[in-house]
Amino acid sequence: MTREESFMNEAIQMSQESVKNGGGPFGAVIVKNGKIIAKASNKVTQENDPTAHAEVTAIRSAAKKLNTFNLSGCEIYTSCEPCPMCLGAIYWARLDKIYFANTKADAKDIGFDDSFIYKEIELSVDKRSIPNIQIMRHEALKVFKEWGEKEDKIEY
Amino acid sequence: MTREESFMNEAIQMSQESVKNGGGPFGAVIVKNGKIIAKASNKVTQENDPTAHAEVTAIRSAAKKLNTFNLSGCEIYTSCEPCPMCLGAIYWARLDKIYFANTKADAKDIGFDDSFIYKEIELSVDKRSIPNIQIMRHEALKVFKEWGEKEDKIEY
Repeated sequence: MTREESFMNEAIQMSQESVKNGGGPFGAVIVKNGKIIAKASNKVTQENDPTAHAEVTAIRSAAKKLNTFNLSGCEIYTSCEPCPMCLGAIYWARLDKIYFANTKADAKDIGFDDSFIYKEIELSVDKRSIPNIQIMRHEALKVFKEWGEKEDKIEY
Repeated sequence: MTREESFMNEAIQMSQESVKNGGGPFGAVIVKNGKIIAKASNKVTQENDPTAHAEVTAIRSAAKKLNTFNLSGCEIYTSCEPCPMCLGAIYWARLDKIYFANTKADAKDIGFDDSFIYKEIELSVDKRSIPNIQIMRHEALKVFKEWGEKEDKIEY
């Protein structure tokens, strides 16, 4: 087993334990300098948190452990291709590399919405299945302007 | 001020307070049956959590409050068009409607990566800026099969 396979094996084991414990069939680990710094399985139904996918949970755990919102220098191993929420989280966390096993099509085959959400995101705002309505941009832009002019801001 | 404007006004106020307190310029509220059930601002830098966008944080808070991972029947008011991570979270949470004020282009103008991440998500896996490597699908698929055959699973 290669180094990468041993980390993925951990992620797959997390997914398997999750199924046994009543959670979704997904696991992820985050690795830095050749060591696992965070492991997580999907906790959506157990914690009543729709955002508690394995990748999001592992990112939150790794960031807490390293005391930073920037996880550059880290890799994620996930038992399934990340959904748009998790892929977005991976970009915001600045992870270096993604290893995945199952695909979004495999997830679709067992009843998960990943492929549907990918398709929705590619549509223009007015064509998505959830109605999107823009109001009060003028008022909200004032705050963006304030941020733009703030000198001591912490960028991320 | 309409009902919708008063809720958006709350979201914008959350974004403004956040800038004053050293956080990112984003706020969101979740409304059910005409009442606000959760409010949040962006806490990425303050909590060292790259996933702590206003929308994700409001969703987590509302789900905790209602003790369910399914927020159908709720609307979200966000001071800026959701990024892909937050839009994904909104789909998983089954929210009914999205009201937004600033656009992703407005966010780009003040230095945020929302537009970049939208573009990345539309690319095929092999063309994205973060390397994506598939390994061990065969092993991971066994767990998906196990989930597919599980009779007492909680779907989401």
